[in-house]
Amino acid sequence: YLAIKSHPTAADWSEHDFYSTADSTLTSLHDSIEVQSDKLGGEFDIELSMGVLTVTLGNGLGSYVVNTQTPNRQLWLSSPKSGPARYYWDFRERQWRSSRDDSYLREKLNGELTELCGISIPLQEEGDDS
Amino acid sequence: YLAIKSHPTAADWSEHDFYSTADSTLTSLHDSIEVQSDKLGGEFDIELSMGVLTVTLGNGLGSYVVNTQTPNRQLWLSSPKSGPARYYWDFRERQWRSSRDDSYLREKLNGELTELCGISIPLQEEGDDS
Repeated sequence: YLAIKSHPTAADWSEHDFYSTADSTLTSLHDSIEVQSDKLGGEFDIELSMGVLTVTLGNGLGSYVVNTQTPNRQLWLSSPKSGPARYYWDFRERQWRSSRDDSYLREKLNGELTELCGISIPLQEEGDDS
Repeated sequence: YLAIKSHPTAADWSEHDFYSTADSTLTSLHDSIEVQSDKLGGEFDIELSMGVLTVTLGNGLGSYVVNTQTPNRQLWLSSPKSGPARYYWDFRERQWRSSRDDSYLREKLNGELTELCGISIPLQEEGDDS
């Protein structure tokens, strides 16, 4: 048994399909975080624009940014807690995974935001084929 | 003679003053790039919002994002050409410099954007005390 890891490139994933998957992820993250904004103070702000999700936590906690890197078919995370990280789409798992250690974007965000401010990110959304 | 390198932290740079310097840089970059938008096609878009500068080049060239990382007093660049990088403020030089190799944010952006699409970034702006 050979575990197949897929790091899709422009050669095997059209810009349109990539952008559609990326946008769906960013919209889902935006919505899951925004409904929990009551857990944060008045400095909290969230915005999704031009393929960039910006979450300003306020209270000195900093900002999370997830941006769409179309040429290399990745999402890049800027985390004030753990630094920059790149995520590729795993077609088999239907999840964004770290190019460094294969960890999942949603788990990473969920872990950090839960610890920092009690916000939880649903972990299964991307795998749903609904 | 001892060359002093400064990697300012929250301990020696107030959030307000950091943000003011960061915002001034992002505004300057925004304006320098926007006036050259005729060098790019109809997919070009630029936006500065919530401390995040997003430059979508279009034509398959990808997007540059510079985001404000307040807790660690840095600007983080996401470059589709060279990857993620972090920049600290050098008080002596009055420039943002790479935490990896001390290179300058403006030079980096100027070099890449000139090569990709003929856009040039003025290199001296931040050092001006005007």
